[in-house]
Amino acid sequence: MDGEPLYERLAEHYRRIIAAGTLSPGDRMPSVRTFMAQHGVSLSTAIQTFRRLEDSGWCEARPRSGYFVRRRASPVLDALPEGDAAPLAIAPPFAGLHERVSRVIDRGHTATDALNLGGASAAASLYPTERLQALAIRLLRRKPTLLTDAGRIDALPEFRHAMAKRALSYGVTVSPDDVMSTSGGVDAVNLALRAVAQPGDTIAIESPAFFGLLQLLESLGMRALEIPASPTTGLSIEALEVALNAYPDIRAVVVVPNLQNPLGSVMPDERKAALVALCASRGVAVIEDEPYRELVDAPHTVKPVKAWDRDGTVIYCPSFNKVLAPGMRLGWISGGRWHARVKMLKFAHSRHNAALLQAVAAEFVGSGAFDRHLRRFREQLRVQRDATADAIARHFPAGTRMNRPPGGMLLWIALPDGVHSDALFDAALARGIRIAPGSIFSNSNRFDAYIRIGCTRAFDAAQEAAFDTLGRLVRDAIAAG
Amino acid sequence: MDGEPLYERLAEHYRRIIAAGTLSPGDRMPSVRTFMAQHGVSLSTAIQTFRRLEDSGWCEARPRSGYFVRRRASPVLDALPEGDAAPLAIAPPFAGLHERVSRVIDRGHTATDALNLGGASAAASLYPTERLQALAIRLLRRKPTLLTDAGRIDALPEFRHAMAKRALSYGVTVSPDDVMSTSGGVDAVNLALRAVAQPGDTIAIESPAFFGLLQLLESLGMRALEIPASPTTGLSIEALEVALNAYPDIRAVVVVPNLQNPLGSVMPDERKAALVALCASRGVAVIEDEPYRELVDAPHTVKPVKAWDRDGTVIYCPSFNKVLAPGMRLGWISGGRWHARVKMLKFAHSRHNAALLQAVAAEFVGSGAFDRHLRRFREQLRVQRDATADAIARHFPAGTRMNRPPGGMLLWIALPDGVHSDALFDAALARGIRIAPGSIFSNSNRFDAYIRIGCTRAFDAAQEAAFDTLGRLVRDAIAAG
Repeated sequence: MDGEPLYERLAEHYRRIIAAGTLSPGDRMPSVRTFMAQHGVSLSTAIQTFRRLEDSGWCEARPRSGYFVRRRASPVLDALPEGDAAPLAIAPPFAGLHERVSRVIDRGHTATDALNLGGASAAASLYPTERLQALAIRLLRRKPTLLTDAGRIDALPEFRHAMAKRALSYGVTVSPDDVMSTSGGVDAVNLALRAVAQPGDTIAIESPAFFGLLQLLESLGMRALEIPASPTTGLSIEALEVALNAYPDIRAVVVVPNLQNPLGSVMPDERKAALVALCASRGVAVIEDEPYRELVDAPHTVKPVKAWDRDGTVIYCPSFNKVLAPGMRLGWISGGRWHARVKMLKFAHSRHNAALLQAVAAEFVGSGAFDRHLRRFREQLRVQRDATADAIARHFPAGTRMNRPPGGMLLWIALPDGVHSDALFDAALARGIRIAPGSIFSNSNRFDAYIRIGCTRAFDAAQEAAFDTLGRLVRDAIAAG
Repeated sequence: MDGEPLYERLAEHYRRIIAAGTLSPGDRMPSVRTFMAQHGVSLSTAIQTFRRLEDSGWCEARPRSGYFVRRRASPVLDALPEGDAAPLAIAPPFAGLHERVSRVIDRGHTATDALNLGGASAAASLYPTERLQALAIRLLRRKPTLLTDAGRIDALPEFRHAMAKRALSYGVTVSPDDVMSTSGGVDAVNLALRAVAQPGDTIAIESPAFFGLLQLLESLGMRALEIPASPTTGLSIEALEVALNAYPDIRAVVVVPNLQNPLGSVMPDERKAALVALCASRGVAVIEDEPYRELVDAPHTVKPVKAWDRDGTVIYCPSFNKVLAPGMRLGWISGGRWHARVKMLKFAHSRHNAALLQAVAAEFVGSGAFDRHLRRFREQLRVQRDATADAIARHFPAGTRMNRPPGGMLLWIALPDGVHSDALFDAALARGIRIAPGSIFSNSNRFDAYIRIGCTRAFDAAQEAAFDTLGRLVRDAIAAG
C-alpha cells in the first residue's frame, strides 16, 4: 500500500466503508472541509479522493450539495432461485460431456472474429503486464541459468516460502515444505483427486460446477455426485450431509467456496467451518479449488475453508491464472494429510514447474505489488461487472433472473422459461457473439436454461450492442417457443 | 552450420568420418598440404582443424610424422551381457517402488554436499544459457503480454509449426495441428498412456527402464510387463512378439529407441521398422519417449521409430529437458490416431503450457542455433563420457562390465558378482558420492547388481577421486561377500 498515492488509499478506505454498509446509497459523504480536518490532508488530496470515488462509480456529486454515495438506478432483475434441498442422484459417468464441451470450445475458437462474452479470464490489459515483464527480465539477468538449470525435484524454495508467508496473512498455516507448485488450478485438483480417490470412486461436487471439473472427473473415471449449491451461499452443507449418509463411497468433495464458477457465490464463514467439520468427522477429503478468492469485494480478508482445517482434511489448491497472470499457468497445492502422495504423483506425472515462472510469482506475490494490483483489479472488475449486469437488465426480457455477485468476473443468468442455452449459443455465434451455455456446467440437464457471461474487459459499445442482440434472440426464442 | 568457423565445420566432417569407421584408430590423417589442397583452405585453417581434433581427443600429433587417428589406450572392461531371450512374467503392481525411488532421491537430496554421479541432466554450463536468456528477454520485450495473456487453449501456433518443421528434417511427418506442448517427456508419456489404456491394463516396457516410467505406471494403476532389452540394440522384438501372443491385454509398448535410459542402446533401423510393423499389425500403440535422440553420435541423422509410422500407431513424445534446457520443462506430443484423446486429456488435466516457454523453444529450435548447440554438446558429452568410462575402467575391479554407448550422458555398469547396488549406494553416500542404484530401474531384482553413472559435466579431479573411492568400495564388498 505504501507505494500508492494518499488519495488512492483514502478512496479505498471509503470504498470499504460503503461496501460494509456503514454508508448507504444516498448518504451524504463528509464535506470537503470535514474530510480535510478528519484525515489531516490538503484540499487537493480531498478533491482527488472524491474525484476518484466519483470516477469509479461509488459517489456522485450533486450541484451545490456535495458528494453522495451513489444510488443505483439500474433496472433490477429477479434474483436466481436457490438450489434444491435434496442431493441429485449420481449421474452415470457421462461419456458425452467431453464432446459437448469440446464442441462449444472448438466452435467458439473457429469463430475467431466473435466477441467473446463466454470467457473467464480477464484481458491482459487488466493484469500487471509491464511489471511482470520487467520482473521476468530482471530475474533472467540476475540468474541466467533459470532456463537451463535442472533444479531440484520439487518447487523452488523461494516460491514455497513466498506462498506459505502469504497464506499466513489470510489465516492459513502451511509449512513451506507443504507447498508444491502446479500448472494452475486444474493440475492441482487433478493431483488432489488422484491422491484421495481411485477410478470408480464417487466425488461430491457443487451443482452447477465448472465444466473443467466435470471433464477431469470423466477422464479420471470417477463418478460426479452433484450437490445443490445456492447462488449466494454456495454448497448446501445439509445436502452434502444427506449425500454422505446415502453414499458411503464418497471420497472427496471439491468446492470453490469463494466466487464459485459459474455461480459467483461466497460461502459464509459458518458454512466454511461446518463443511470442514463435517468432512473431517467422516474422513472425507475437502479439495478446495481457489481461482478467484482474491477477487472478492469485502471490507475484510475473505478466508479459504483451509483456514478452518485442523487435521489436514483440506487439500488447498490456489492458482494465479485468474488473479495474476493467465499466461503463466501457475498455482500451488498443499495436500494436507495426503501431501506426501500429492508430491509423489506430481513427481511421477510431470515433475516440477519451470523455475522462471515460480521465481516471478514468488517475487511478485512476496512484494506489495500483488496487493496493489489486486486493489486496482477488483475495482476495475466491479465497474465492468456493474456495467455488464446493467446492460443485461436493460436488454433481457422479464423472467430473466440474475444475481450480482460480490466480486470476480462472472455472471450466471437464468433465461426465461422455454429458452434453451444451446440454441441461444448457436444463434449468438451465428451473429458473432460467444457465450457459455449452462448445459456444460452439469452432467444433468438442470442448467440448460442458464448462460454464463464473463465480464472480462472494460464495457464498451460493442458489448452494449451484443447484449442488445442477445436480448432480442431471447425474446425471439420465447416467441417461437 | 553457417554461423560456425570453417575449421569447426571441417573438424566435424572428420569426426563423422572417424565415427563411421572410414578412418580407424592409428590411421594417418591427410598431411597438412594434402588437407589444404583437398578442401581449398589456408594453412591456418588446416592447422586450426587439426588442433581442434587433437584437443577433443580424436587425433594425436606424432613428432615429424603428422596427425593420426587416436588409438584408445584406455583399459577396457568386458561388455555387458545381452538380455535374456524370454519375456519376464508380469510383475505385480509393485507398491514398494515409489518408496524405493523416493528413498534414493530423498537421501540423495538430503546430502546436498554430495558429488552427484547419479544424475541424468547435464550441467547448466553445457546448455546454451546465455542465448536462451537473451532470447527470452527479447521475446518478453517484443510481446509483453506473454505472461498475462490467457492465449488459446492449445499450443502456440509458432511452437507447433517449428516442431512439425524440425520433425520433417529427421523423417517424421506430422501436421502442426497434431503437435501439442507438454511439460516435458514424463507429462507426454503420462498423456499417451492414459489415452490408450485404463487402470489394470498391461503395458510392455523395456527392462531395465527409466524408474520414472515405473513410477508413472504404478501411479496409474497399470501393470508393467518388462521385456528384455539388449544394451546395444535395445528392446528385443522377438521377446515382444512372444509377449504380445501370451498377453492379449497389452495395450501399448513404451520404448526409448535412441539412447535408452539407463542402457544407452540405439535400436538399428531394421528393428525400429519391425517394432512399428509388429505393433501396427496387433493394434498395439507404440509410445516413443524421446529425451536423448539428438545426442546420438552418428555420421547421419538418427530417426525415431515414428519415422516408420504409416497409420498413426506411434505416439511420439520428444522433449527438450535433456537436449536443450532442463529448466524449461518443455516437450511435445503427437498422438497418432489417439491425438484427439491426447488433446482432450491435456486440456482436462493441465491446459496448455506457459506461452513464454513455448515461444523460446519455437524460436531457438527453428533457428540454426539449435543444431550448432547440439554439435558442441555432443562433442562435450563424448569427451566427458570417454573420460568417465576410462576412470571406471581404471578404478573398478575385474568382473565389472560396461559398454560405451554411442552418445548421451549415461553409463550402465554391471558390478562384479556379489556386489549389491543398494549397499554400494549407501556406502558411497556416506562418503559424499551419489550414484543411481540399478534396483530402481526394474520392478524385479534383476538389476540389483547394476549402477547408472551420469557423465553430466566436465571430468575433473573430484570425479577421479570419487571413482577411486567407488572402486575401493566395490573391492571391499567383494572381499566382504
